[in-house]
Amino acid sequence: MSMTMSEKILAKASNVDKTNAGEIVMANIDVAMVHDLTGPLAVESFKKIGTKKVWDKDKIVIPFDHQIPADSLDSANNHIMMRKFVKEQEITNFYDLNQGVCHQILPELGHIVPGEVVVGADSHTCTHGALGAFSTGIGSTDMAMVFSTGQLWLKVPETNRFNVEGKLKENVYAKDVILHIIGEVGVDGSTYKACEFAGSTISDMTISDRMVLCNMAIEMGGKTGLVEPDSKTLKYVNTRSNKQFEVFKTDLDSPSLTQIAIDVDDLEPQVACPHNVDNVKPVSEIGDIEIDQVFLGSCTNGRISDLRDAAKILKGNKVAKGVRMLVIPASKEIYTKALNEGLMNIFVDSGAIVCNPCCGPCLGGHIGLIGPGEVSLSTSNRNFKGRQGSPEAEVYLSSAATAATSAITGKITSP
Amino acid sequence: MSMTMSEKILAKASNVDKTNAGEIVMANIDVAMVHDLTGPLAVESFKKIGTKKVWDKDKIVIPFDHQIPADSLDSANNHIMMRKFVKEQEITNFYDLNQGVCHQILPELGHIVPGEVVVGADSHTCTHGALGAFSTGIGSTDMAMVFSTGQLWLKVPETNRFNVEGKLKENVYAKDVILHIIGEVGVDGSTYKACEFAGSTISDMTISDRMVLCNMAIEMGGKTGLVEPDSKTLKYVNTRSNKQFEVFKTDLDSPSLTQIAIDVDDLEPQVACPHNVDNVKPVSEIGDIEIDQVFLGSCTNGRISDLRDAAKILKGNKVAKGVRMLVIPASKEIYTKALNEGLMNIFVDSGAIVCNPCCGPCLGGHIGLIGPGEVSLSTSNRNFKGRQGSPEAEVYLSSAATAATSAITGKITSP
Repeated sequence: MSMTMSEKILAKASNVDKTNAGEIVMANIDVAMVHDLTGPLAVESFKKIGTKKVWDKDKIVIPFDHQIPADSLDSANNHIMMRKFVKEQEITNFYDLNQGVCHQILPELGHIVPGEVVVGADSHTCTHGALGAFSTGIGSTDMAMVFSTGQLWLKVPETNRFNVEGKLKENVYAKDVILHIIGEVGVDGSTYKACEFAGSTISDMTISDRMVLCNMAIEMGGKTGLVEPDSKTLKYVNTRSNKQFEVFKTDLDSPSLTQIAIDVDDLEPQVACPHNVDNVKPVSEIGDIEIDQVFLGSCTNGRISDLRDAAKILKGNKVAKGVRMLVIPASKEIYTKALNEGLMNIFVDSGAIVCNPCCGPCLGGHIGLIGPGEVSLSTSNRNFKGRQGSPEAEVYLSSAATAATSAITGKITSP
Repeated sequence: MSMTMSEKILAKASNVDKTNAGEIVMANIDVAMVHDLTGPLAVESFKKIGTKKVWDKDKIVIPFDHQIPADSLDSANNHIMMRKFVKEQEITNFYDLNQGVCHQILPELGHIVPGEVVVGADSHTCTHGALGAFSTGIGSTDMAMVFSTGQLWLKVPETNRFNVEGKLKENVYAKDVILHIIGEVGVDGSTYKACEFAGSTISDMTISDRMVLCNMAIEMGGKTGLVEPDSKTLKYVNTRSNKQFEVFKTDLDSPSLTQIAIDVDDLEPQVACPHNVDNVKPVSEIGDIEIDQVFLGSCTNGRISDLRDAAKILKGNKVAKGVRMLVIPASKEIYTKALNEGLMNIFVDSGAIVCNPCCGPCLGGHIGLIGPGEVSLSTSNRNFKGRQGSPEAEVYLSSAATAATSAITGKITSP
């Protein structure tokens, strides 16, 4: 009975021996995450259902990250409501405004291990598949059902397995790989598919790099992103979590598996141009695009490796006149590492500002909004019209290295 | 002809030998400041007047500090408008989002010297009197006239001279002194008066401490705060500015001078309770006041000495469960010093967050808003109803040391 890793994980979660893509299973949920922006609706819906206590106070994780510190009375009220819910329900894993971005801190703080089913009321919950979990974004009302019952129905997805082969050039990163893939298959290129990333390039990648890939699986319509656990995964997980877990891998003769070859040997730095994530071009081909703002951060590229890559480029240089650069580490752990490595000094000396760990401009609903006619180069994951502020603004997406290089030149520039 | 230092400065600025309190003078303005929040109205009014060019592009200083990074499309649009004005008018001294709070960076970057007339479209422009300038807050429409003509009519104020004597106890700071004074005289205790701070306690104070006093002169109705320049002033100014200047001091037999004796030998740490700045009590007398948020920062107490005082207390300790602490250095220079001295590590280790230099929660219109029923302990200068968010919230004001101590205990506590 050949199965993909998604099928195996979902079979286990629904206590059956076998599932096939297309079937609907009722899966037991291992981790359920809501944040400050999606939490309130989930809580309201949970209260309507009428269940008094959540199914498992230890399996719910609630980080604040989208609007911290509160930038409006609405967000302050959301925070108050969520803190009250945490207290009432005795939720064990609550992270107020000092920890960082949900998709970074869940793995960092040991909440994610291979083989689990993870749901989060946020599109980019697929990030956690980098550790070999089946992890997907769900709506707040679905989350209310999870809070009540600990279960959720899921249609078992087919799998697109991207076999990535080749050695990346020095100035080419995981972000360039995933932008290239999305550019190739399109924003609907993996609709409701589990997107597995495999091959020698992926084996060579760090866990952080794999998170970049899985994070953006949703941008080609994926139900989740996944990387098969290896020794790097086990090392990461074992140093951070004491949960038991099981490792699942894909049988390559699974009927629901489609294999797609990706060669990255000659890949150049890529950029997603406005206003779709699949509008991807090599940086060398886009011409002179002047920028107003650079955002280095987010659950896609706000990790320590990104900060290091950017700092290496910014060191001794200045952010161009007329360009503002926001550096927002994705978590307290990353922030502390960057402090200790002297990266903050490099950023501030160069003219950038460093904000507290949070989602920053990514959501277009907290800090770092851009106005009409402005152009942002962002290391985040979405460049939709209006995503970072005005619908008359433009957002380009790139790696941290491209972002840092461009901050210095004032236009989108290959590292 | 005995005169106060305010009278002497305004006489010089209006090219007359003598002015008396109560007279109206047309003063030449040396420095005119607007920021991102008050600038747009000043610019609109300036355009209505119809003058094509500002009177002096080198005497206008425009820092962004209130809403940086932009937290709404409105603020993004304000920023765009102001940047355009800066470009059109070739304003020399423009500081975009990476420099810090106006009342801190104007002195730091050498824009303020003794004997000048400084106007700013912000109430706390009186801060700069700490360097012996006559510095006052004006409305945005008055500022439009200054932009056009370089002049402004001013009624020459009488002077309240606070002679502060005594040695401060170890845990008592300039903030406690000014809260005590405001508590004594009331919020209308110096209405339209120049508030001079003199005496041995003031001589012993650093320039930063003197800025704390002058910053809050407006909170007792003062037209400005002032400290006579001494060797500390000259050292501060000469290392930061190459402007020529003249030092003015008050003749103690000036007819418009009222002297008020303040003894601080036995002064304890003070706190201004909701909802008025003169509702001041010793911390020891307020009972158990639990807090939700601590804000360390602002043009009042976001200086390096404040950060050092707070870090000394926080080192090895944790911010209390349920309390959130925001640390917001007042400028890039302070931020960099704090980085280099390892203070950021102490803050983050303790559970606080560090934001980019900006006004933070002080204005209740950017980040760090508090909701209904919440209590904030803040090192800023105003605790008016609704000042930091909800009108159903409460704001207490204290020194940085009291704020840090209280962050650890979770209730307002003497250092």
